[in-house]
Amino acid sequence: MSSVPPPVFHRDPSRDGVINRVQGFFLTRFGWFWRLIARWPWAAKWLNHRLIHAACKRAPRRPYPLSTMHASDFTSWDSLSDKTWNGRHLPPMPRDEVADLPTLRKVAELFVRPAGGFVECPKSTTLFPAFAQWLTDGFLRTESTDFNRNHSAHQIDASQLYGERPGVTRQLRTLVGGRLKTQSINGEEYAPYLFKTGIRPRVKNDGLNDVPDPLRFDDRFPLERQDALFAFGGERANTTPQTAMINTLFLREHNRIAAELAAAESSWDDERLFQTARNVVIVLVIKIAVEDYINHISPFRFRLRADPSVAWTAAWNKPNWMTAEFNLLYRWHSLVPDAAAWPTGEVAGVEGIYNNRLLTEVGLGRAVAACSAQPAGRIGLFNTPRFLLPTEEASVRQGREVRLRSYNDYRELVGYPRVDRFEQITGDPTRLAALKELYGDVNRVEFYVGLFAEDSRPTAAVPALIGRLVALDALSQAFANPLLAELMFNDQTFGKAGMAIIGVTSSLQDLVNRNTTGGPYAATFTRSNRGPKPTIFGPPI
Amino acid sequence: MSSVPPPVFHRDPSRDGVINRVQGFFLTRFGWFWRLIARWPWAAKWLNHRLIHAACKRAPRRPYPLSTMHASDFTSWDSLSDKTWNGRHLPPMPRDEVADLPTLRKVAELFVRPAGGFVECPKSTTLFPAFAQWLTDGFLRTESTDFNRNHSAHQIDASQLYGERPGVTRQLRTLVGGRLKTQSINGEEYAPYLFKTGIRPRVKNDGLNDVPDPLRFDDRFPLERQDALFAFGGERANTTPQTAMINTLFLREHNRIAAELAAAESSWDDERLFQTARNVVIVLVIKIAVEDYINHISPFRFRLRADPSVAWTAAWNKPNWMTAEFNLLYRWHSLVPDAAAWPTGEVAGVEGIYNNRLLTEVGLGRAVAACSAQPAGRIGLFNTPRFLLPTEEASVRQGREVRLRSYNDYRELVGYPRVDRFEQITGDPTRLAALKELYGDVNRVEFYVGLFAEDSRPTAAVPALIGRLVALDALSQAFANPLLAELMFNDQTFGKAGMAIIGVTSSLQDLVNRNTTGGPYAATFTRSNRGPKPTIFGPPI
Repeated sequence: MSSVPPPVFHRDPSRDGVINRVQGFFLTRFGWFWRLIARWPWAAKWLNHRLIHAACKRAPRRPYPLSTMHASDFTSWDSLSDKTWNGRHLPPMPRDEVADLPTLRKVAELFVRPAGGFVECPKSTTLFPAFAQWLTDGFLRTESTDFNRNHSAHQIDASQLYGERPGVTRQLRTLVGGRLKTQSINGEEYAPYLFKTGIRPRVKNDGLNDVPDPLRFDDRFPLERQDALFAFGGERANTTPQTAMINTLFLREHNRIAAELAAAESSWDDERLFQTARNVVIVLVIKIAVEDYINHISPFRFRLRADPSVAWTAAWNKPNWMTAEFNLLYRWHSLVPDAAAWPTGEVAGVEGIYNNRLLTEVGLGRAVAACSAQPAGRIGLFNTPRFLLPTEEASVRQGREVRLRSYNDYRELVGYPRVDRFEQITGDPTRLAALKELYGDVNRVEFYVGLFAEDSRPTAAVPALIGRLVALDALSQAFANPLLAELMFNDQTFGKAGMAIIGVTSSLQDLVNRNTTGGPYAATFTRSNRGPKPTIFGPPI
Repeated sequence: MSSVPPPVFHRDPSRDGVINRVQGFFLTRFGWFWRLIARWPWAAKWLNHRLIHAACKRAPRRPYPLSTMHASDFTSWDSLSDKTWNGRHLPPMPRDEVADLPTLRKVAELFVRPAGGFVECPKSTTLFPAFAQWLTDGFLRTESTDFNRNHSAHQIDASQLYGERPGVTRQLRTLVGGRLKTQSINGEEYAPYLFKTGIRPRVKNDGLNDVPDPLRFDDRFPLERQDALFAFGGERANTTPQTAMINTLFLREHNRIAAELAAAESSWDDERLFQTARNVVIVLVIKIAVEDYINHISPFRFRLRADPSVAWTAAWNKPNWMTAEFNLLYRWHSLVPDAAAWPTGEVAGVEGIYNNRLLTEVGLGRAVAACSAQPAGRIGLFNTPRFLLPTEEASVRQGREVRLRSYNDYRELVGYPRVDRFEQITGDPTRLAALKELYGDVNRVEFYVGLFAEDSRPTAAVPALIGRLVALDALSQAFANPLLAELMFNDQTFGKAGMAIIGVTSSLQDLVNRNTTGGPYAATFTRSNRGPKPTIFGPPI
C-alpha cells in the first residue's frame, strides 16, 4: 500500500497559551522523571488525581442547561429530563452566522484523501481505530432517523456485548453458569450466528429474535456475509471484522470471568454469576479505555491510572450526558487506511463491511496482531478515505443543524486562547490555502473543520483541541460510572476473584493474552514494535 | 371533636448519643442567638451550608449498591440502571429474621387510634399533612401493581401539576401565553373538570383523554364526586380536597407567573413562557419545601434556607433515587384527625375522598385557613384513624417484603447509638407494654414500627429517627435538582422576572397571599396563631 510519511510543518504557536505551553513542555518530556514519580505510590496517586481533575474541570460541569431539543436557546424541564436529545456544551450559533458558512460540498472536499496520498500517523496502529469505533459504539448511539437524538444509556455499559435492553441480554445468555452463548469455529470461541444459514429474506436463529439487526444491513450484501453475522448486543458490533474482533475478545473474557467466579463462589447461581461477570467486564472496559487507550491518545509521559477514588468527592462527578460536540469530535475517519493489511491479504475499504469471515478465517489472535502491525492514518484534513466522504459531509451538516459555535468559541471554552491567524491552526500550506479560501476570516472556521485542521504533535494521536475535549467528556463520564462509586467498588460487587481480575488488567494486551491460543499476539495501539507494554501500576487500591 | 392533650412521658435518653444531645441542646434553644446569626449574611450562609451538609452526610452517598430488584443481596448493572425499582440504604434482613417477626395483624394494631383517643400534635396544623401528601405524591410514586417499584422521576418536578409525560402536559396547556387550562367556579380559578358531567361510565372532556384517571377512583363513588374531579397532571392530586387545594394553589401561581413573564419578555412565545413558568414553579416548590416545610419539621431554631450553591461542589450531590426506606418513613397517617374542621362543618375521614365540591364551595382561601386552624394529630403509635388501618398493615407488610433491616440498624446508619432497652425508645407505658409483648428483644423491633414508636420532642413535628432520615433523603435530593445547578440558576433559565419571584417566595403563605382574594387567609404549618411568619432571609444570592 502506498503511503506518504508524515510531513513536518511549522505552525505559529503564539496562541497556544503560555500555561498550556509550559505544561505541555514538561508533561511531554522527561520520561525518566515521570517514571520515577510513578514508582512512588503517594506521589503517583496525587499526580494522577491532579491531572484527571484538571482534564475534567476544563469546562463548566454537568448538567448542561441546553440540549438539541429546543431549536431556540432556552432551558426547560423537558429538555433537562429527556436525554434522548444530545447535550451541548455551548449555546447555538446565531442563525445568520450559520447561513453564512461555505457550501457543504466544498467543506467536505477539505477531507478528501488524494489518490495515493495516505498520510501515516507516526504514533497509532490500526488497533486504535478498531477499539475507538467499538468503544464509542457503546455510548454514542445516534438515532438513525434523527441525528439530534440518541438511544444511549450515557454510560460505559458494554452494551455492544450485552445489548441495550434486558430482553436482548437474556437471549444472549445460556442461563447456565453466568455464560453468554457461543459457538466454536475452527476451534475458537465466537458468538452464535444471528441468522439461519442460506435464507433470504433473513430469519433469526431460534431464541435470538430480540437481538438487533446490524445497523443498515440489508439484502444488497451477499448471502455469505449475512450468514456470518454474529448475535451481538450492539447493532454496530458487526459492522467490520475489526469491531467484531473487539466484541469477540470481550465475549470470551466474559465467559472466562464467569468460569473463574463460578470456581471461586460455589453458592452463586447463574444470575449472580452473569451479573457479576458483567460488572467486572464493564470495569475492564473502563480500565482499558483509561490506562491503555487514553494514555495512547495523550502526548504526556505520565501514564494515567483508572483509580475510582478520583471521582468519589469530585464536583465534576455529575450525571452523564453525551453531547453533540463529543459525538462529532469523535469522527476519526482519517485513521482508516485505504486498505486493511489483513493476514490473508489487503482488504479494501468497503470489502470489510459486515464481513466476519475475514475474522473467523484467520482467528482472533492473528487479526489483533495484524491490526497492531499496520500504521493508522494521521487524523486531520485531506486524509479521509473516499468511501467515507458522505459521512464527512453528513458530519459537517450535523454540526450546522445543531448550530454548533465556531472553532474559536470551543477553544475558549476549554482554555485555549482564540486564534487570530490561520497559521496558528496549521503550518501546512495546502490546508492553509484551502481554509483561507473557504473561510476568509479565521473566526468563521466551524467547529468540525477546525478540530481536524490543527497540526498534531508527533507524540499525540489526535490534534490538541480534540485531545482536550475528548479528555474532558471521556474522563468525567467514565469515572462517573456507578460501578466505580465508593460504596460499589469492592468484593461485594465484583467478588474477590473479580476484584483480582480488575487489579491485573490494564490493557487490551492483557485480554488478548488470556483469550487466544497459539500466540503471543501483539495487541498495541502504539507503533513501537517493542511488544506488549509493561503494566506500570500494581492492582488498584 | 374530642381530643386528648399530648401527654408528657419520661424517656431514657442514655442512648441518644452525646454529640447528638449537645447539638440538640444548642440548636433547639437560644432563639435570640440563631436570629442574630441569621442577620449576619456570611455567618448565616456558612451555618446554613454546615447544617445542610451535616444532614446530607449522615449516611453514605448515592448511588446505592442495592435496590428492590433482586431478591438476593447483590449488585447488577440492571439494578443500577433501572430506577423503577426502589433504592435501599441498607442490604436486606436475613430471611429467617423476617420470618421470626410478630404477625402482621398484631403489629398493625399498634397503630390503631382508640375511639375518642385522638392525640393532638403540639406543633402542627392540618396544613402540614395536606402539603406533605401533595409534595410526596410528586416523587414517591409507588406502582399500584407492585409496591417494590415506582414510576417516579426521582425529582421534585411538580408533576402533580404538569403530569409525568410530555403528552399529558400538552393537554393541560392552553398553548397560549404559557398558561395552563382553567375554569372559573364562583369567581375563582380552578383546573377544568376531567370528566363530562353526569355520564356513567365516565368519559373524559375533549382534549383531556391522556390526563390520568385519579388513582383507584371507580364507579362506587357518587356521580357528583366524579363530576367535580379536576384535570390534574398527578393521579393522586384529586384524592382529597386538601391535595386538590394545594395543587390549585400552584396552578394559579403558574398562570400568574406566566402572565408576569409575558409582560416582562414580549418576544417570548407560548412554549418559552410555559417552560420558564414551569422552571420557576419547580423552584418555588423546592423553596417552600425547604424554607417553610422542612423548617417546620425541624426542631432547630435556625431556619434553613434553600441556597442552591450549597450543592454545587458537594460530594453528596449525586443522581437521585427514591429509597424503600424513604417511601415508608413518610407514612404519617397519624397526622390525620378523625374529621376535618371544614368551614362548612366537620368532614369525617372518607367523606373527603375525591370530594372536590368541599373545596369549590368554600373557596381556596377559606380552605387553606381552615387547615391552618386545626391541630394535626401527633405522629406516632396508637394515633392512626381507623379508616387508614389497612394502609398501616400494608406498610408493615411492604417493609417485610423488601426485608428492611431493624430499627436499630437504621439508627446506626445515621449516627444514633443502638438502643438496648425499650425505655430508650419511648416513655409511654402503653407503647412500652405493647412493644415488649410483641418483640421481647429491642433488637427485633422492625424499621416501620420503631420509627413511629419514638417519643417526639415537643418542638419537633416528627420523632427523631424519622427527622434525620427525612432530612437526609429530602435535602440531598431536593438540592440535586438540575434547575438549581450552577450553570442553571440564573436569569437565562428563569427570566429576570422569574428570578425575582423566586427571591421573594419562601412560604406557602406567600403563594396564598398572591393567589386568593378576600383574605388575608392564614397559611401555616405551625400552631402559633400569630399569623403569617415573616421572611427571615432576603432574596437568594
